[in-house]
Amino acid sequence: MSKSVFYHAGCPVCVSAEHEVINLIGAEKVEVVHIGEDRKRIDEAENAGVKSVPALVTPNGNVLHINFGASIADVRG
Amino acid sequence: MSKSVFYHAGCPVCVSAEHEVINLIGAEKVEVVHIGEDRKRIDEAENAGVKSVPALVTPNGNVLHINFGASIADVRG
Repeated sequence: MSKSVFYHAGCPVCVSAEHEVINLIGAEKVEVVHIGEDRKRIDEAENAGVKSVPALVTPNGNVLHINFGASIADVRG
Repeated sequence: MSKSVFYHAGCPVCVSAEHEVINLIGAEKVEVVHIGEDRKRIDEAENAGVKSVPALVTPNGNVLHINFGASIADVRG
């Protein structure tokens, strides 16, 4: 199985959701990407359908927006 | 590990999220509750902190609101 990708921006909601997702799915099955720091991946996230963070893009390509930390526009600043 | 509980109301967003969550976590680790049909569990969901469905309550008691299908008020009708 390919990995899911968890996009976040370091916000408190993001950190909490990251812990839960890793507990549930397993760290080895999730790539964690901080798009506030790794800004060249903002476009990649948006192209995958991510509208806000935290969000998990599954191996099927579906986007699960988990709670709400910040919009992509906010992260872009 | 105790189970997570996935609350939904049968909406298209809920069904899609349910498939993803079960793929990611494993069906044996998730109890799926349709609060549109099993209405006596609406209070239980709300007491757990669920504000909208679909939502996953983790074994730690944290609530992950996944995408947005319907508010609890909408489900209550």
